[in-house]
Amino acid sequence: MDDLGDIVGSIAAQMSAEADRGRVADYIPALARVSPDHFGIAVVTADGTLHAAGDAQLPFSVQSVSKVFALTLALDRVGDDLWKRVGREPSGSAFNSIVQLESERGIPRNPFINAGAIVVSDALLAGQHAREAIGDLLRFVRFLADDDGVTIDSEVAHSEAGTGFRNFALANYMKAFGNLDNAVEEACKVYFHQCALTMSCCQLAMAGRFLMADGVHPGTGRPVITPERARRINALMLTCGHYDGSGEFAFRVGIPGKSGVGGGILAIVPGKASIAVWSPGLNERGNSKLGSLALEKLAERTGWSVFTA
Amino acid sequence: MDDLGDIVGSIAAQMSAEADRGRVADYIPALARVSPDHFGIAVVTADGTLHAAGDAQLPFSVQSVSKVFALTLALDRVGDDLWKRVGREPSGSAFNSIVQLESERGIPRNPFINAGAIVVSDALLAGQHAREAIGDLLRFVRFLADDDGVTIDSEVAHSEAGTGFRNFALANYMKAFGNLDNAVEEACKVYFHQCALTMSCCQLAMAGRFLMADGVHPGTGRPVITPERARRINALMLTCGHYDGSGEFAFRVGIPGKSGVGGGILAIVPGKASIAVWSPGLNERGNSKLGSLALEKLAERTGWSVFTA
Amino acid sequence: MDDLGDIVGSIAAQMSAEADRGRVADYIPALARVSPDHFGIAVVTADGTLHAAGDAQLPFSVQSVSKVFALTLALDRVGDDLWKRVGREPSGSAFNSIVQLESERGIPRNPFINAGAIVVSDALLAGQHAREAIGDLLRFVRFLADDDGVTIDSEVAHSEAGTGFRNFALANYMKAFGNLDNAVEEACKVYFHQCALTMSCCQLAMAGRFLMADGVHPGTGRPVITPERARRINALMLTCGHYDGSGEFAFRVGIPGKSGVGGGILAIVPGKASIAVWSPGLNERGNSKLGSLALEKLAERTGWSVFTA
Amino acid sequence: MDDLGDIVGSIAAQMSAEADRGRVADYIPALARVSPDHFGIAVVTADGTLHAAGDAQLPFSVQSVSKVFALTLALDRVGDDLWKRVGREPSGSAFNSIVQLESERGIPRNPFINAGAIVVSDALLAGQHAREAIGDLLRFVRFLADDDGVTIDSEVAHSEAGTGFRNFALANYMKAFGNLDNAVEEACKVYFHQCALTMSCCQLAMAGRFLMADGVHPGTGRPVITPERARRINALMLTCGHYDGSGEFAFRVGIPGKSGVGGGILAIVPGKASIAVWSPGLNERGNSKLGSLALEKLAERTGWSVFTA
Repeated sequence: MDDLGDIVGSIAAQMSAEADRGRVADYIPALARVSPDHFGIAVVTADGTLHAAGDAQLPFSVQSVSKVFALTLALDRVGDDLWKRVGREPSGSAFNSIVQLESERGIPRNPFINAGAIVVSDALLAGQHAREAIGDLLRFVRFLADDDGVTIDSEVAHSEAGTGFRNFALANYMKAFGNLDNAVEEACKVYFHQCALTMSCCQLAMAGRFLMADGVHPGTGRPVITPERARRINALMLTCGHYDGSGEFAFRVGIPGKSGVGGGILAIVPGKASIAVWSPGLNERGNSKLGSLALEKLAERTGWSVFTA
Repeated sequence: MDDLGDIVGSIAAQMSAEADRGRVADYIPALARVSPDHFGIAVVTADGTLHAAGDAQLPFSVQSVSKVFALTLALDRVGDDLWKRVGREPSGSAFNSIVQLESERGIPRNPFINAGAIVVSDALLAGQHAREAIGDLLRFVRFLADDDGVTIDSEVAHSEAGTGFRNFALANYMKAFGNLDNAVEEACKVYFHQCALTMSCCQLAMAGRFLMADGVHPGTGRPVITPERARRINALMLTCGHYDGSGEFAFRVGIPGKSGVGGGILAIVPGKASIAVWSPGLNERGNSKLGSLALEKLAERTGWSVFTA
Repeated sequence: MDDLGDIVGSIAAQMSAEADRGRVADYIPALARVSPDHFGIAVVTADGTLHAAGDAQLPFSVQSVSKVFALTLALDRVGDDLWKRVGREPSGSAFNSIVQLESERGIPRNPFINAGAIVVSDALLAGQHAREAIGDLLRFVRFLADDDGVTIDSEVAHSEAGTGFRNFALANYMKAFGNLDNAVEEACKVYFHQCALTMSCCQLAMAGRFLMADGVHPGTGRPVITPERARRINALMLTCGHYDGSGEFAFRVGIPGKSGVGGGILAIVPGKASIAVWSPGLNERGNSKLGSLALEKLAERTGWSVFTA
Repeated sequence: MDDLGDIVGSIAAQMSAEADRGRVADYIPALARVSPDHFGIAVVTADGTLHAAGDAQLPFSVQSVSKVFALTLALDRVGDDLWKRVGREPSGSAFNSIVQLESERGIPRNPFINAGAIVVSDALLAGQHAREAIGDLLRFVRFLADDDGVTIDSEVAHSEAGTGFRNFALANYMKAFGNLDNAVEEACKVYFHQCALTMSCCQLAMAGRFLMADGVHPGTGRPVITPERARRINALMLTCGHYDGSGEFAFRVGIPGKSGVGGGILAIVPGKASIAVWSPGLNERGNSKLGSLALEKLAERTGWSVFTA
């Protein structure tokens, strides 16, 4: 393959020139005012090299990408008992559907849809105040990224709280089925702050390294989680990481990834690379349009795929 | 890792001794009378070595495992236009649901649920008689397996036709939406015969080799399909290969696989192995109980996973 | 109130002049070629007087209106055991949905949706050939209407058979759940012929008299069914007679009615009148647009409503 | 028919002796501790006579029966614009389903399911504080019943607020679709207090008189609502008054009725009677088991039915 730096640079150039950039999420003002013109990409390889291009240093709202870190931390805290409260199957629904919660009695299909992530937030609380749980998560992400510049945007967090009626509905619904231990408001507070994590592509790619490295933090050389758990989180990212576009992403790109409505995607090539892309415009499934395309091109040019010999 | 032959043998021994073997499918007599005591396993590695144990030579009804071969052949015939008629997303439904067909106007979610496979059968017909399409598929599978001993059990095919009201319902429903080109009876005839393919674990593992080898038939050294298509079929197997247990299989086993109600599973480790297991008893999701467990243990002991470094 | 003849005439005149006439069903040619300009109305009162206006003598395809007569005859044949196979609740679905059949395991919600009517057709077969069951039903409707001019349009019946994939799907689906005793083809044959009943408004209003008269055939003075069964069929017409527009019809018109996709509606004012209207254009719920409007106006001007003092 | 007083008395005696009394709602303590042994019945006829038997003077929590009064008052306040925010069709769902809200974008099917009633509560607020809206409703019901003894049980209201997560979920969900004007907490507060209305059978039958009398308050002789609106509310009670048992109630009993989870049912025979029954045990559809049975027997013995000549 070509030099990785060249590939990354040429993809960034190509994406910056794209006319059709998708539609920026507009349900909260702080997201709506981000320009669709941004594109950033950062790739950290197994040997620790970082290649970045475009707006790779610009912080953005990672939104649902944060679900990967929250899940990792919650599994560390409560162990596999978490799986009694949330499933591991793709949702198969066009939206972050409340329908499935009704037929499956308050157990969300997986931790990467909103309902599942709210259960994860509830697990992170574990009797603490929301503020403490949020602090724990922030510290954990900073540790993973080796970077204390990762922040939580409280304007975003409060906007979510003000407009997140659908998430309050999901939380109340699960509470009705007994699947929240803490108050609805507390679980949602953790969830909204988690979504408001603000990171650049470089920080995000750094934070994802442990998933490329069978659970080991390359900075410390010590395990964050077991290899088995790392494999399993990667599997969940592949089957459930792009909402109802997960099958399509696996089909086209062929590597585990988790997208967020802010336009970011974290993608993992086990043993090879941790990748973050960002472009705010979304496709019809709610995933970054150019981010998905950039990853498809990157996979094509590097040959990275979990489905190849 | 230990010697692969030893691993395969010890897994077979362990599975034979298991008390809880799941429930044999009983909707057609020819399946119902198969003993739950069978267990077979066959592994073909990239260098062409075959390791087999248990009832690996015993032919069984591959049922939905055949969907992998039918899809491959249909893509070869009609190309990517097939994707206008069938999706690539996990179904997220507990059953081979007709519900999704209603809300998505006759387009099945993926080619590995029954509705999707009936569309694939319809594509295989392409103006021929059912008998010819069935003949084509049989020849193709024999070619893939390098084995003319692969057959179609016409008793099984006719039993399906007699009891397959749900499949006739699916086919009529899609026909109502204009998503079948041929007569319902013809498409179903192809589908029922395809499901009646009868193969041993050894034959099945042999037939799956091209998916481990980026599309190349190891026997001839020539491509059956392009590497890209091979990758994509593997991706579909991972996200959709075990019905509503696909997420769980990816989580636990971590390699692409396709199960059938006869108790067989074909699993692919890209670049490394093509694996077939068979045990007739099914778990609550309709996948081979011991087959799934055997693959989990095999993955554990060999370290084979698409999600690991 | 004004003279009933005057009211009927003025409504017919008003409806003929309406510009917005809805959309004629076009799924079979025999229905599609009917002009939307038709409007007919016939009212038979308790004293036997018939008031008719517009195209009240023109025969049309009664389609689902026939479900009322088929249900009456089937209840007479198999008694209340029929209710083990079909429910009595409104469907609450926008279409003649197959979704509900899945969640309720092959038991249709009521006898006035297609699936329910196919079960009724199956009950009418009762071991006979389809031809005999169809003959029985035709004789029964002629008897109710006191008119041997009622016919079955075999072109319509055969068109339905050719395009009725959705109905075949429903029938196969129920067969899969064990809720059809006879072959799918036989039950559907009865159903398609029943839908092809051809009657004028006058004939239809005459045929409905027994429901206005607590089950008594006014021509013979003898009961066709018990008063209790007549009341119950009226109740079903009110709650389920207009598909997913039943609530709206009850709200606006306030009398039991059953519509058909041919544009006919039979409506019953217990103790007072049996009414038939016909106009081929349908509203968005699949019920005759001007037929519904005409009945609303008739109810308004006569004060007929089951919900008034 | 027999003397109405005798009929009422004998039904009460029969119901008191019934062994199988259904299951008392237990989701809030104040309801759970009510004895299933209660049975009360009160019938007010058009001439103003009141027949009562059993526990007809004992106050109970009317719960969803209150939806009739809230709808009446809200229609009076905001007029038919209310129908832009809530439908008029039976729900066809086994539960007070959130599923329908998803597919129909936040518009509840009718005002007698919980979601619809919350929209009605929101309409009653109309910029006031919840306390004022609650006061208005209480005054309205007292006026309808000619009885200042009607109260709201604040223990019940507060219990609902504490356990009503499913209702909060519905309200948040509709708020997400823009179908609540006021804060979720305010609308739910009105709703919970409305459900906590406490009335005896006698009070309830008195309060329902205007619906028997084409909208006229028999005490004042003056219209509460127009005859047309009275008819329409009766129609809604018939098609939607018993949740997913509405069709069955229409089929068996044949008169408009609205049930509540406290075991009460208000039933209206237009022009003839306003009836209240109460027995706390519920059937599998969530309607009073003995209350339904008592009404069926009363209809049978009096001949009261809207579907009879």
